[in-house]
Amino acid sequence: MITPLEKLQEKLLKNPPAGGLDALLISSVHNIIYFTNFPGFATDEREAFLLICKDKQYFITDARSSGTVRNNVKDFELAEIAAYSPFQSILKKLAKKHKVKILGIEEKNLTVSEFKTLSKSFTTKNFDTDDLRAVKTPVEINKIEKTCQLGDKTFDYILKKIKKGVSEKELAIKIELFIKKNNADVSFATIVAFGKNSAIPHHVPTHNSKLLAPNSIVLLDFGVKLDGYCSDMTRTVFFGKATAEQRKMYKTVLDAQTRAIELFNTKYSIHNTIKASTIDKAARDYIISKGYPTIPHSLGHGIGIQIHESPRLSPKSKDILKEGMVFSIEPGIYIPDFGGVRIEDLVVLTKSGSKLLTHSPKTIIEL
Amino acid sequence: MITPLEKLQEKLLKNPPAGGLDALLISSVHNIIYFTNFPGFATDEREAFLLICKDKQYFITDARSSGTVRNNVKDFELAEIAAYSPFQSILKKLAKKHKVKILGIEEKNLTVSEFKTLSKSFTTKNFDTDDLRAVKTPVEINKIEKTCQLGDKTFDYILKKIKKGVSEKELAIKIELFIKKNNADVSFATIVAFGKNSAIPHHVPTHNSKLLAPNSIVLLDFGVKLDGYCSDMTRTVFFGKATAEQRKMYKTVLDAQTRAIELFNTKYSIHNTIKASTIDKAARDYIISKGYPTIPHSLGHGIGIQIHESPRLSPKSKDILKEGMVFSIEPGIYIPDFGGVRIEDLVVLTKSGSKLLTHSPKTIIEL
Repeated sequence: MITPLEKLQEKLLKNPPAGGLDALLISSVHNIIYFTNFPGFATDEREAFLLICKDKQYFITDARSSGTVRNNVKDFELAEIAAYSPFQSILKKLAKKHKVKILGIEEKNLTVSEFKTLSKSFTTKNFDTDDLRAVKTPVEINKIEKTCQLGDKTFDYILKKIKKGVSEKELAIKIELFIKKNNADVSFATIVAFGKNSAIPHHVPTHNSKLLAPNSIVLLDFGVKLDGYCSDMTRTVFFGKATAEQRKMYKTVLDAQTRAIELFNTKYSIHNTIKASTIDKAARDYIISKGYPTIPHSLGHGIGIQIHESPRLSPKSKDILKEGMVFSIEPGIYIPDFGGVRIEDLVVLTKSGSKLLTHSPKTIIEL
Repeated sequence: MITPLEKLQEKLLKNPPAGGLDALLISSVHNIIYFTNFPGFATDEREAFLLICKDKQYFITDARSSGTVRNNVKDFELAEIAAYSPFQSILKKLAKKHKVKILGIEEKNLTVSEFKTLSKSFTTKNFDTDDLRAVKTPVEINKIEKTCQLGDKTFDYILKKIKKGVSEKELAIKIELFIKKNNADVSFATIVAFGKNSAIPHHVPTHNSKLLAPNSIVLLDFGVKLDGYCSDMTRTVFFGKATAEQRKMYKTVLDAQTRAIELFNTKYSIHNTIKASTIDKAARDYIISKGYPTIPHSLGHGIGIQIHESPRLSPKSKDILKEGMVFSIEPGIYIPDFGGVRIEDLVVLTKSGSKLLTHSPKTIIEL
């Protein structure tokens, strides 16, 4: 089975960007995880680089992590950063050895100050790994599926904890503790929104325990990170009976989602690819046709090592959806000072159409 | 009391970078938190910007967070990103309104691709907020102190859980659950290292429950995030009796740390400032003088909204330590295939010298 590193090497050799590259410098932590399976770095600091030459690969990091890298990462030679052997000297030395003049860089990740330093020694060219990562290998799909299973278990668990007197923040913590106890991490800050707060798509949970009144909307949006891969799901349930207006909103969102997902099983199987914007439009137009405001965000996003990655399912997206892509479908209706409904599932695109990876129930739940 | 935003405005007006700035674009999530107190964004995605003009400030974000921003952030006017009102158009409109030609940017944070787009419309100049953030306000110091208190409580708790049969990973999870239950987050991935693994400064905890043998070193390095601010501490304890060699290593590290910390109370109080490299050298040279290898990392790092920020306490650091700075002092000795010892505390520099913010015991602990 082809690995991400082999996919990269193939892309580098077969389709070099204009002018060709002598080597590629990988700086994004997510791509370091992707190519090496090594998960030990923080995402908001620069602790490591990969240098991919045509005939050899290097893992450049410092003594804090080099021992673990040496013991766990295959296919890469370790080059250790130290006080008197800084990153720039190592890079220059390796570049000289491999005759690197034109260096591929990740312009979406490298900072301006890093770029200014590199530009003194190299001609740089942008190299984008989005397409590579958008199409998942079977191993990756399997990992995401397992992550989604824990997401479903978490939803099942948290339903029992929605009781009078509980605050949004308490439920969010319970979700995160449950995930931690199952040997996993959360993939993003958990959203729990009661009542009017559900009209804010990325609401930050509050400590106010009086918000859970009868007939309240309860919106839960959370994700699991397991073995380096993310899940993401949203369910909207009701505390007490849903009102007629709440039911109508819920049904509209669910029907919009079903329309989008079903599109893969009609249009996609014939043409074998489908535009991301077509899927977005199907759900968006349906919601508007029912008299509601348009979805104030994209219909969905690719997911994998990152919670949001390629492809994007939005009105202006130019992405084409293909077999092996994994993404969310998450229509929503948000009425200020009233509330919101969002339903989100993850989907993998297979030879024959779409397959759901999240399986929590979507019939109206009244607690 | 002066706020971070006021500190920034003063710096912008009093000491504009060469050529002057018409406005400043803040892209780093940590700086967004610093200037607005709004904690709701992921650190590895671009979900918001601040535009600081001379007479007005804007918070630019999309509908997922705009409601929360509108309700919670003072002193900033909201500018909402939407599918047909993308960030670039908003920025151009605001720039026209405020006659912005020279735009300050964070070159350490902005990506090359963002920079290339901005460069088409603006003359850019780097603006660095490191110095600003390095010196904490009393409000910030108070927050870090509270975070450290929970760190101490966590250490006290975890000591009781170090028992035969437990794995590094299990202890790491227990630490993280304890922190979560106390309404806080972890500030970085918890390090728990038994025996030989402690020789790797940033060891990734394993599931192997056989590693905790008698006379094992147990290294615990963890941090808490509370109210937007980080703590960081390391303790090394022994499972069973420490051997003579382990005791010697421990005493050397502790003495090195004490020497570094004491330096503030002798040299600093006279000169009122002290070089970061001088502090690093005091601990480093002491460890070497006892026949051990040099510390393979910096002696310490500033801490606040980020786990690692300015100042840096390293041999090559040019930083000057001043009143109000908060940083770690964390010497270590690491012997491959034997084990390592690291002791880390947080310190705040006051008028009269150094003050410890972490208070967990440092006498040898044998469990």
